Amino acid sequence: MEKAIREVQDTIGEDSISIDDEVLHAHGYSNWANHNIDKLPVAVVFPTSTEEVSQMVKICNKYKIPIIPFSGGSSIEGNFAAPFGGMSFDFVHMANILQLHPADMDVVVQPSVSWMDLNEKIKDSGLFFPIDPGPSAKIGGMVGTNCSGTNAVRYGTMRDWVVNLTVVLADGQVVKTRRRPRKSSAGYNLTGLFVGSEGTLGVVTEITLKLTTIPEETGVGVVTFPSMRAAAKAAVDVVHKAIPVGAVEILDDVQMNVINRAGNTDRKWKETPTLFFKFAGTTGAVKDSIAQVGQVVKAHGGSDFEFARDEAEQKSLWSARKEALWSMLSLRTHGNEVWSTDVAVPLSRVADLVEVCKEEMDALGLFGSMMGHIGDGNFHETILYDGEKEKEEVKRCVHSMVQRAIEMEGTCTGEHGVGLGKKEFLPEELGLGTLEVMRTIKKSLDPHWLLNPGKIFDA
Amino acid sequence: MEKAIREVQDTIGEDSISIDDEVLHAHGYSNWANHNIDKLPVAVVFPTSTEEVSQMVKICNKYKIPIIPFSGGSSIEGNFAAPFGGMSFDFVHMANILQLHPADMDVVVQPSVSWMDLNEKIKDSGLFFPIDPGPSAKIGGMVGTNCSGTNAVRYGTMRDWVVNLTVVLADGQVVKTRRRPRKSSAGYNLTGLFVGSEGTLGVVTEITLKLTTIPEETGVGVVTFPSMRAAAKAAVDVVHKAIPVGAVEILDDVQMNVINRAGNTDRKWKETPTLFFKFAGTTGAVKDSIAQVGQVVKAHGGSDFEFARDEAEQKSLWSARKEALWSMLSLRTHGNEVWSTDVAVPLSRVADLVEVCKEEMDALGLFGSMMGHIGDGNFHETILYDGEKEKEEVKRCVHSMVQRAIEMEGTCTGEHGVGLGKKEFLPEELGLGTLEVMRTIKKSLDPHWLLNPGKIFDA
Repeated sequence: MEKAIREVQDTIGEDSISIDDEVLHAHGYSNWANHNIDKLPVAVVFPTSTEEVSQMVKICNKYKIPIIPFSGGSSIEGNFAAPFGGMSFDFVHMANILQLHPADMDVVVQPSVSWMDLNEKIKDSGLFFPIDPGPSAKIGGMVGTNCSGTNAVRYGTMRDWVVNLTVVLADGQVVKTRRRPRKSSAGYNLTGLFVGSEGTLGVVTEITLKLTTIPEETGVGVVTFPSMRAAAKAAVDVVHKAIPVGAVEILDDVQMNVINRAGNTDRKWKETPTLFFKFAGTTGAVKDSIAQVGQVVKAHGGSDFEFARDEAEQKSLWSARKEALWSMLSLRTHGNEVWSTDVAVPLSRVADLVEVCKEEMDALGLFGSMMGHIGDGNFHETILYDGEKEKEEVKRCVHSMVQRAIEMEGTCTGEHGVGLGKKEFLPEELGLGTLEVMRTIKKSLDPHWLLNPGKIFDA
Repeated sequence: MEKAIREVQDTIGEDSISIDDEVLHAHGYSNWANHNIDKLPVAVVFPTSTEEVSQMVKICNKYKIPIIPFSGGSSIEGNFAAPFGGMSFDFVHMANILQLHPADMDVVVQPSVSWMDLNEKIKDSGLFFPIDPGPSAKIGGMVGTNCSGTNAVRYGTMRDWVVNLTVVLADGQVVKTRRRPRKSSAGYNLTGLFVGSEGTLGVVTEITLKLTTIPEETGVGVVTFPSMRAAAKAAVDVVHKAIPVGAVEILDDVQMNVINRAGNTDRKWKETPTLFFKFAGTTGAVKDSIAQVGQVVKAHGGSDFEFARDEAEQKSLWSARKEALWSMLSLRTHGNEVWSTDVAVPLSRVADLVEVCKEEMDALGLFGSMMGHIGDGNFHETILYDGEKEKEEVKRCVHSMVQRAIEMEGTCTGEHGVGLGKKEFLPEELGLGTLEVMRTIKKSLDPHWLLNPGKIFDA
């Protein structure tokens, strides 16, 4: 390892690597993660180009050192933990928009571009990138976990928006998964394979993303319900009827309470199961959608719509939803921890699962909220707990939620990825044969198991 | 091979295999294909279940016999040709809809289900499957080539609509790529890897497809233009403005002439570059979209809209477009052949490419039409030619189109797949390193190179 560090310094420069304790800690431990381990990376490298990544990977390959890509550092399942030490590759110096092609409706970016910054910077083109995970996420990590967010019900997930990737393979070779057509049937879908592989198959250094047109008008409306079941059923009904909503999010009474306590909006919300709708499109289409959704929610016992009164309120209301996890984290006091996780199930089972999970959390006396991208069958449980006393109960509660989701033909993670935290569930969810196919691909592309080892599955 | 045939007969039954000349010919030669070779499969097997496919694959594996999956038989790039002989796996007895889950908006089908039959059979559920390639295509082959069709501009491609696959691997083992959540981040995206792999990584025996809601209203409108460039630019502008059209297709003067000659619609169309639009949605949204598209096409020199007058005319008009290749085939006389192929490029280059290809075809004096899914940057050239005299010119013309598409950062195939016909273009399009990654995956999953050998790339 010392030799490797010296070789990186000699080849690329003194500043390209750090072994400072604080730096190591910041790249191996996370305040937001459900899973922190005792190990840290041994060094952190700061490449400035694909070429430098390739050189660094070659050095790691020579000395058989684990490689762990790092961008936003806000993933929560231990996706960038360093169980085998190794080098964390921090892309902080690769945070540029390289090319914007407005006429082709795509953009080429480096891994540490933040999706929110990207949208801010390109907004004059009339285009935007619609995948919206947590505000601190960066494109590199978003590729790694195949993330999504509130817009997925309309726009799909990360995988649907990546045109091509530049990837440094385990031996340092640089490949590009394909050119820039919006669709292609030319050979294997390597783009879609690298997306969601959590850095275990290659190190992504450049990403071409599709963009779409900023809607003429948006609106945010809120409807309250007597129960989570009613709210979930209303949301699924909107999807069944294919009413073009921009997003539909479910939030339980606890989450509404947390929003009120965080105080980011200048009104008090009713603390009861709630659906947040986003509407987007032409003025006519938005009006049309609101009327249709209004009918559906009424039929499920929902209240009248309350609309954000202006753009500022729309923004703060939606960001209250987007920052739900952060709000919860801000409630922590000494000894408190937060466990936040997600599952996804077929649409017909969402209401059942939400209801039973809520009951179970209450029965255990845990302070936790439920919310989620209900239109995709994807939801999150976020529990604030006493790190010493309640850890086992929380684990049991989460375990039971995931188990139920899998039994309902769902998945242990809809958008956060496997990391360390969901590894134990994959054999049951996928079956050993399917897992073995994944392992075979991994071994063929990374024979020494150097790329983010210990994530998704073990060697 | 004889031993293998006997073993299939003994294990699964006499009727499960054929070596009849006519049957072999029907599974190795195609009237529609651009590429026919002298070789035929040595036998055709007719499995009735995943279990039987597994048994047959095990026998093929034991005797090292190539395995070639076959469903609709209407692919055109030689995708089911048998350059190394082997066994064609015809799924004609696996043509059932296994489970329809209306509440989950998905359906489980076998490989030989036709997408048109599927939609006819499930229409009472209010749902449909939106991927619409040629009318004779079946789901198995559609998975193989990652096909799309006219609806892609709104709904995406095959890959976006497959939830999971049951796959028989090269050694006969059966795996399922994942359960039934609509989205997932649990491990590698095997579903998306098998889709588009043309049967070279495994034999697909069951497919779960997402469905969507049948739109309340549809409309078909036609606009003519003074040039292909103007028509292409108008189509791309509609996409840029994100006006929600159901489809936008470009057809050149020759194709309009072919439609008139085929006589499937009871009016004569102007034989000039034309855009066909499909509109779909609520009554209000359709009206809104028509008005907006009307403005865009006017700005590009387009005519007024002509609308299909009723549902029957909508259907026949759209099927005229869908059957364009078939219409061209029906014009063949003795010695004539048809070469039909597709490319895709970034949106900004579509007008350039369409224009130059049209000029070149005319300059060569070839009778060919151009049409395509212009909103995706994907289009088709279909040439009717004298099989003896004009073959070299046609080859040159197609080669030049593909070359130009690749230079424009596009792809040699947007939706037909590589098969035999596009193999020569992959090294330039993807680069040798990327192709080697594909080959590495192929070798790891099919070490004896038994699954549809000779397609996409060579060993």
